[in-house]
Amino acid sequence: MKLWQKGFEVSKEIEKFTIGKDREMDIFLAPHDVIGSIAHITMLQSIGLLAAEELSTLKKALIDLYHQIEQGNFVIEEGVEDVHSQVELHLTRKLGEVGKKIHSGRSRNDQVLLDLKLFIRKEIENTVYLVKNLFDTLIQLSETYKNVLIPGYTHYQIAMPSSFGLWFGAYAESLIDDLITLQAAYRVANKNPLGSAAGYGSSFPLNRTMTTQLLGFEQLNVNVVYAQMGRGKTERIVAQAMSNIAATLGKLAQDVCLYISQNFGFISFPDELTTGSSIMPHKKNPDVFELVRAKANKIMALPNEITLITTNLASGYHRDLQLIKENFIPAFTELNACLNITNYAISQIIVKEGILEDKRYEHLFSVEVANELVLKGTSFRDAYRIVAEQIQNGTFVAPREVKHTHEGSIGNLKNEVIQSEMQKVLNTFPFEQVNKAIHQLLNN
Amino acid sequence: MKLWQKGFEVSKEIEKFTIGKDREMDIFLAPHDVIGSIAHITMLQSIGLLAAEELSTLKKALIDLYHQIEQGNFVIEEGVEDVHSQVELHLTRKLGEVGKKIHSGRSRNDQVLLDLKLFIRKEIENTVYLVKNLFDTLIQLSETYKNVLIPGYTHYQIAMPSSFGLWFGAYAESLIDDLITLQAAYRVANKNPLGSAAGYGSSFPLNRTMTTQLLGFEQLNVNVVYAQMGRGKTERIVAQAMSNIAATLGKLAQDVCLYISQNFGFISFPDELTTGSSIMPHKKNPDVFELVRAKANKIMALPNEITLITTNLASGYHRDLQLIKENFIPAFTELNACLNITNYAISQIIVKEGILEDKRYEHLFSVEVANELVLKGTSFRDAYRIVAEQIQNGTFVAPREVKHTHEGSIGNLKNEVIQSEMQKVLNTFPFEQVNKAIHQLLNN
Amino acid sequence: MKLWQKGFEVSKEIEKFTIGKDREMDIFLAPHDVIGSIAHITMLQSIGLLAAEELSTLKKALIDLYHQIEQGNFVIEEGVEDVHSQVELHLTRKLGEVGKKIHSGRSRNDQVLLDLKLFIRKEIENTVYLVKNLFDTLIQLSETYKNVLIPGYTHYQIAMPSSFGLWFGAYAESLIDDLITLQAAYRVANKNPLGSAAGYGSSFPLNRTMTTQLLGFEQLNVNVVYAQMGRGKTERIVAQAMSNIAATLGKLAQDVCLYISQNFGFISFPDELTTGSSIMPHKKNPDVFELVRAKANKIMALPNEITLITTNLASGYHRDLQLIKENFIPAFTELNACLNITNYAISQIIVKEGILEDKRYEHLFSVEVANELVLKGTSFRDAYRIVAEQIQNGTFVAPREVKHTHEGSIGNLKNEVIQSEMQKVLNTFPFEQVNKAIHQLLNN
Amino acid sequence: MKLWQKGFEVSKEIEKFTIGKDREMDIFLAPHDVIGSIAHITMLQSIGLLAAEELSTLKKALIDLYHQIEQGNFVIEEGVEDVHSQVELHLTRKLGEVGKKIHSGRSRNDQVLLDLKLFIRKEIENTVYLVKNLFDTLIQLSETYKNVLIPGYTHYQIAMPSSFGLWFGAYAESLIDDLITLQAAYRVANKNPLGSAAGYGSSFPLNRTMTTQLLGFEQLNVNVVYAQMGRGKTERIVAQAMSNIAATLGKLAQDVCLYISQNFGFISFPDELTTGSSIMPHKKNPDVFELVRAKANKIMALPNEITLITTNLASGYHRDLQLIKENFIPAFTELNACLNITNYAISQIIVKEGILEDKRYEHLFSVEVANELVLKGTSFRDAYRIVAEQIQNGTFVAPREVKHTHEGSIGNLKNEVIQSEMQKVLNTFPFEQVNKAIHQLLNN
Repeated sequence: MKLWQKGFEVSKEIEKFTIGKDREMDIFLAPHDVIGSIAHITMLQSIGLLAAEELSTLKKALIDLYHQIEQGNFVIEEGVEDVHSQVELHLTRKLGEVGKKIHSGRSRNDQVLLDLKLFIRKEIENTVYLVKNLFDTLIQLSETYKNVLIPGYTHYQIAMPSSFGLWFGAYAESLIDDLITLQAAYRVANKNPLGSAAGYGSSFPLNRTMTTQLLGFEQLNVNVVYAQMGRGKTERIVAQAMSNIAATLGKLAQDVCLYISQNFGFISFPDELTTGSSIMPHKKNPDVFELVRAKANKIMALPNEITLITTNLASGYHRDLQLIKENFIPAFTELNACLNITNYAISQIIVKEGILEDKRYEHLFSVEVANELVLKGTSFRDAYRIVAEQIQNGTFVAPREVKHTHEGSIGNLKNEVIQSEMQKVLNTFPFEQVNKAIHQLLNN
Repeated sequence: MKLWQKGFEVSKEIEKFTIGKDREMDIFLAPHDVIGSIAHITMLQSIGLLAAEELSTLKKALIDLYHQIEQGNFVIEEGVEDVHSQVELHLTRKLGEVGKKIHSGRSRNDQVLLDLKLFIRKEIENTVYLVKNLFDTLIQLSETYKNVLIPGYTHYQIAMPSSFGLWFGAYAESLIDDLITLQAAYRVANKNPLGSAAGYGSSFPLNRTMTTQLLGFEQLNVNVVYAQMGRGKTERIVAQAMSNIAATLGKLAQDVCLYISQNFGFISFPDELTTGSSIMPHKKNPDVFELVRAKANKIMALPNEITLITTNLASGYHRDLQLIKENFIPAFTELNACLNITNYAISQIIVKEGILEDKRYEHLFSVEVANELVLKGTSFRDAYRIVAEQIQNGTFVAPREVKHTHEGSIGNLKNEVIQSEMQKVLNTFPFEQVNKAIHQLLNN
Repeated sequence: MKLWQKGFEVSKEIEKFTIGKDREMDIFLAPHDVIGSIAHITMLQSIGLLAAEELSTLKKALIDLYHQIEQGNFVIEEGVEDVHSQVELHLTRKLGEVGKKIHSGRSRNDQVLLDLKLFIRKEIENTVYLVKNLFDTLIQLSETYKNVLIPGYTHYQIAMPSSFGLWFGAYAESLIDDLITLQAAYRVANKNPLGSAAGYGSSFPLNRTMTTQLLGFEQLNVNVVYAQMGRGKTERIVAQAMSNIAATLGKLAQDVCLYISQNFGFISFPDELTTGSSIMPHKKNPDVFELVRAKANKIMALPNEITLITTNLASGYHRDLQLIKENFIPAFTELNACLNITNYAISQIIVKEGILEDKRYEHLFSVEVANELVLKGTSFRDAYRIVAEQIQNGTFVAPREVKHTHEGSIGNLKNEVIQSEMQKVLNTFPFEQVNKAIHQLLNN
Repeated sequence: MKLWQKGFEVSKEIEKFTIGKDREMDIFLAPHDVIGSIAHITMLQSIGLLAAEELSTLKKALIDLYHQIEQGNFVIEEGVEDVHSQVELHLTRKLGEVGKKIHSGRSRNDQVLLDLKLFIRKEIENTVYLVKNLFDTLIQLSETYKNVLIPGYTHYQIAMPSSFGLWFGAYAESLIDDLITLQAAYRVANKNPLGSAAGYGSSFPLNRTMTTQLLGFEQLNVNVVYAQMGRGKTERIVAQAMSNIAATLGKLAQDVCLYISQNFGFISFPDELTTGSSIMPHKKNPDVFELVRAKANKIMALPNEITLITTNLASGYHRDLQLIKENFIPAFTELNACLNITNYAISQIIVKEGILEDKRYEHLFSVEVANELVLKGTSFRDAYRIVAEQIQNGTFVAPREVKHTHEGSIGNLKNEVIQSEMQKVLNTFPFEQVNKAIHQLLNN
């Protein structure tokens, strides 16, 4: 069944090719499609395009359907083109002709735009929750191991003393900046495209402000041509923000993969978190972190894919935009799985103590020595030359003691500031009011 | 069941995360895994690591399994990690302990490397076949419509006369260069990694030259460290070549989408090849070509994704490489579907005649007029200025007659040269000898 | 001269290769390097690492140098490695040994991090200003031409009536969402990395909160390891935001290139804004917009380039990060040039009236007719079928009248809401307080 | 001066913006532009569009100009748009009106296409030469250090014994596959676009076969529309091949950066090849290899940039294509610098002996032990379990002896096969006949 079917049949080859994975992807949109329809028909009734009874009947059926979807009892049937058609089919089977009225004053274009935005809002909420969990774990690890020193590297060369406190805390702080970009993406997504129809508006006297409020959006996508332009653009901006979180996870995973290498040996994990080799009996491989790293890279490739699909296309809808769903929608599942497993695994990390006692790390302390000379009056450039000569002569003696006191240093992590900065960013996500709006829509 | 299982259990969370889509992807590798195993055990027997009877028993069972796979009767069971484990499980269930021997002298690393290379060889063969089909269609359309003129554009501005003969023929010729890059990718893939084990070779006296011949490879991946380096690299190079074909299909699709727009109106398609709109009853949308364009862009994003996953990783296997399969393996299905549907649709194209009679196209002929002045002795720069003045004065009269005679021009398409160039490239793919080797392996 | 020179000379080949374009790029950082040094030495004096007179002498010389740079009188000399070395050289030439003290308690790592962040803040301020200019022009054009109808396209097929009011307004609104992402990037950049030294802090009792205030930063990059992680990450996030603006410009340019094509003919530009062809005397090509489109695509490629350079590198500085500057720093110049020229050119656009009178556009009105049937009581699905039949029969009569009244539609653009939304976003950029801090630093 | 100038002036803003870096890039094309013009006028005379004397005068002046360019005495003057205009200007200044005739029967479109193809041919020849140099160095190092063992890693975990022989040899072999893709790119580039004019051919009776032979091309770009389609496509395909070489260099550089880390310590370099730190006196950083890695990543980003610029553009020239030059042309310089410096540095590598004596590496030998059990009759799966238990019990004793004998293994590198495979690929580049053709053109 197709909403637009005319007198002739589309060729089977064409149909198979054009449907692609649409049904598979649309399952993710189903609850949001129903929510959007409830808002739409509530508005339709308010402008006289639906009788009060019709609204009441349709709304009840849609709320039932919503719960059915939540329980996993929803399929897009073979031969049904998309979620919108399936929902309409469900209603007409149950209620007859009135079921068709949910599409008055809408196009599939603004309907799918709306579904995607509602989907994005919900997924970002999940992601933020998982980011916060990981953040808490990292801060806790930073505090627990704040006195355990490790080498700090630059150029993959040993450089200066660092600590597990700094290392865990750095990744915690990294997530704050990532969430700043995710919050911007949320703001871009949190605007109402409904009523833009096929991208040029409608001759119906729609009340778009009303659906904006019913759905808890911050604002309209005002201009209907721009509302349609949001397709592809919103996904790209959201994917950029996802890629920023992914970058943090990927970098952490890369550090982990090195640090558990026998050549570093700073950390380890319980056996049940590692995997083996089919031919090397001694191997305990960090597959989890390698896959987090790889999945992070895959997510980082997503904005570019979306850009490639959309660039150099003139304004107005193109079917190309449908294809974005195929990698965009599962990317949330992937990202959230990475956040989850990283949190699960990193919380079981085993940290090695006394690492810096190994003689190979003694040069780490060269700057400390140079700085002490400076504090006694030597210019830094001269102190630097003195220590460099000691190292070349082999007369350098490392102090093995670190006295860093400034903000954010080994001895003064300021994790409480990092925590309060995180809280500030979290407070800028309006999840509560959004959820309240949706709750009202489904319960009134 | 895991080939590398030790005394402890891997955590369920880790297991679920690390397996990912491996089973789903490995189905595509199954026939090739079996073929590779047959070659491997044949070699093992030749160096005394397998008894002649064992070889005979194992080979028979593997050939049976191959046919089972071909008939679609093969699944990777829940709890079985990958295709290699499933094949071993199949053999041990059927034959007992001897089933385990197919893994002697191998690692999963060289096994999956081999599977991927055999998979790539087969898929490229399919792709080449489909490219040739489309090429033939395009050449035929070029010949059929060689006298139907269309505007030629530069800067999306009407520029000079062109023809459907040129337009179809150009895309045919484009496929030749694309196949040149695909043939290079085939050469890179057509080298034997078997025997490289985990990337550092083996203390068994393997005969890698023998498996090279049995499997019809052109040559060894000689150095075992390089053989392992081929993972990710081979996929990237193959993906680049696929992206070149995709680029040609995408450009053709973009032309089609414009030319069937009412603002051009050069071509149309039978109703059953177009799709409709849910709100605009007059629409006949070129969704097929829009999706070809979008899928082409997606394939063009693939080399970058592979590069992102693999870059800055040191030599040696990393689990990250497994993840490449997720988008790489389906890309062949996608590309081949695009080739197929483009051929199907373009062969039904309806071409409009008399396009250039529209007055808006008369300036197309300005260069023809300038050239005539040149042939009568004016310098081109002066002729250019004369015609430019006529156009600005409104005194320009278009001849509406095109007399292009040189090689590759409207009046002299030289499609026969294009066809012979295509044949030359096709001849460089050694499909016949490869297929002969595989046939022998499965039938002796 | 190199800050780190030891007893041996680096090979000339190595030196040439490693310096690359560093000097060329560092010129852009020079004023910011000086500003950063002033803040740093002010803090050094406060913690007793610099005498009050030394501070006063150094500060005066640095302020002089700042003005010299502003006047374009600053070069990085042949043989001097980077801007930091050049500034030190300048000071020691002028003031002797004390000049070296500006580097106490710093590494080149936090110094260049700081320079980049100050550079980014300034450049974003310029970009926001240019975005606002273009926004104003677009809103004005939207108002001026709000009653001039054009066809609205979907699938490059004529779809429904649109207007120049909608078209210009859509791009104005697009810039708002772009600035939301730019503001997030600004927030990420607007944090103080100074004091992180080589990424592991310092044994000096630095007062990082003080430099944060002196430089007008919103907050510290607290954790020193994270501060260093900001290198590459900040550029990537800023580049993403730049790519969003670029995407808007590119799409507008693509529309322009089509709409001035003779096959659309909706708009034109004065002759002096177009360019000609070397062989086609009739051509007036939209090269400006083609180059805006291409440059936009180039900028959109930038985040991926940065990601490629940085991915899979462990934490800690790597020299790779220096290379990001080569395409990142000029990207601002490119983006700002695109914003400028788009504003310059689009403000001279010539709009065609009466476009929809052409018979080819009559089907645009099919939805209007269907909607009228709906308003009279027909269900939309039935109305759709009726109109579709009329079109197939040739009995369809277009009303040529558009009565869209809802928010954001042809008849109710709501540009005032778009303007107030823009103002809200502009208000979130703290340019004023930042500039005040810098002004104080340079004038006290 | 502009070839296409009409009666009006282009606005200064537009002119500045549209010229961009064209003049800077065109310098690289200058010698090829002159060569192309000599071939073109030779052909023009043969079809009667140029008198024999005119040809002789023009050719002499062009050959003089060619030598002038070779000596670095060529500039594109301020106000002159591009190399083609500058060459014409040079000729008309020297010879008067006849100078203009070199453009008869050509457009700037086919002229720049030709220049780019000649440029690409020459640059690829340089690149191949440098690849061969590096290859020879790597093979020599592989032979020299074939008996020095190092750990082989998988998952960054120690895995099995490897050797410097394998490590150097692997990168040598990698270059062979890279050249296979470069040779395909060369074949795509080595076809003659001249005579395609603005992409739609010409009404002049051009002899394109003649210019094909004069310029030493393998074949025509036959179809003129396809010839124009080669713009952007050729660059993309060449950039893909460049990215393959870059990937090999980047991976080698990544290995080097790890192996000189104090945590590995397998290799070192003379002091004059490393660089220092401004605050850490002990540092000897591998900046060269870090920059090779970063530049490799930048080159690997190039194909995607070209794809982004060109995708979704309909056939026919667009000004966007000009912008590709900005990053494409310098990429050869970058790649060649990376090849050069890698060869320079790697040839001075200092290799550590006795690495595997460190106890941390003893598990490397676990597979050797398992294999010996297999050779004595145990199934591999059982041998694997036995050794795994020994390792878990701490009873494992490493043999410290490697007996790998198969092709491509530690004990049997087969570098002579690798060398002969390289020679085979080198032989497929037709540099000799190409250079012969160009030599004749410049000397007859």
